[in-house]
Amino acid sequence: MEVQNPLHDIVGQLSKLPGIGPKSAQRLSFFFLSLSKKEVAEFARVVVHTRENIRYCETCFNIAFSERCHICINPLRQAKQLCVVAEPKDVFAIERTQEYKGVYHVLGGVVSPIDGIHPDSLRMAELMDRIKTQGIEEIILAINSTIEGDATVHYLSYLLKEFPGKKTKLAYGLPVGADMDYTDDLTLRKALLGRTGL
Amino acid sequence: MEVQNPLHDIVGQLSKLPGIGPKSAQRLSFFFLSLSKKEVAEFARVVVHTRENIRYCETCFNIAFSERCHICINPLRQAKQLCVVAEPKDVFAIERTQEYKGVYHVLGGVVSPIDGIHPDSLRMAELMDRIKTQGIEEIILAINSTIEGDATVHYLSYLLKEFPGKKTKLAYGLPVGADMDYTDDLTLRKALLGRTGL
Repeated sequence: MEVQNPLHDIVGQLSKLPGIGPKSAQRLSFFFLSLSKKEVAEFARVVVHTRENIRYCETCFNIAFSERCHICINPLRQAKQLCVVAEPKDVFAIERTQEYKGVYHVLGGVVSPIDGIHPDSLRMAELMDRIKTQGIEEIILAINSTIEGDATVHYLSYLLKEFPGKKTKLAYGLPVGADMDYTDDLTLRKALLGRTGL
Repeated sequence: MEVQNPLHDIVGQLSKLPGIGPKSAQRLSFFFLSLSKKEVAEFARVVVHTRENIRYCETCFNIAFSERCHICINPLRQAKQLCVVAEPKDVFAIERTQEYKGVYHVLGGVVSPIDGIHPDSLRMAELMDRIKTQGIEEIILAINSTIEGDATVHYLSYLLKEFPGKKTKLAYGLPVGADMDYTDDLTLRKALLGRTGL
């Protein structure tokens, strides 16, 4: 009977992480062995605690530990400026820019009939309700420009037809630092069509 | 008072992993949130269990869950062929080749006076003892070719002067698939000096 090597299970678990192959998993295992037992226990505790206690914010459907997320309960945020995103990870991407001081609404995905995701499966009704009851004055659609994303933006534009406030979507154009010659045609086309005043 | 975002702690923990920056840590956090609570608990259990129970094999000082490692207790391994390595991770690297069927001896590092690692701090006495008592017939030194590694090999050659069996060290030369023109001069020089018959 062959006894398994002692890293068999931990390598198996670490290999499940995105972007981690068996070799990286082995290296990561040795990293965990190099930590103290206390550090590893704390690592495990934080990961489990986060997963156990995570829930959706009842207002914006961002991830949170209580009924309302850290953005919705922050009195310094402009509660009348609303940024609509597809997923909680998009909230974190926009937060990283430190450029936006309003609040969010997380749809929970994008319209994709082929995957069975219709507007009804997303939190559109909740969005319309918020706009009505919370006196929203500005709406920013921050949704990735994919086929499904564009369809979602299109559908939202239709829903928001009657909305009297400012409505915008993210600008598309050249990424900062990009070389025009190496940029895909569609992006360059959008950059040209969306050109701004000097 | 600003409430922390719910991923603050898990991102902090994941950022400690080698090669994981804050952005990757955030992506990994969302991966953990996408798993079921059960899967995350199992992940944490395996990581903690491995760290809690890992110890050194009493024979070869490889990592193990019991007194002897999975290689030392495997009756199919040739117990008279001994491969000397610096660290347990080197055992795993050589095992990946599936080319070696002998046993190992882990020194626990390489000689590095500047870091306070003298031959006495390594498991050299244990090595000499094994060679004597276990009737070792062949010794392979598999130690990285760094200044410290080469010094360690040099010191071991001296210790093993009287050893009557076969003594070898790993071959240095061109990595498989490498282009001669792009290989560093020292490696190419070793490849030339160590050229083998056709």
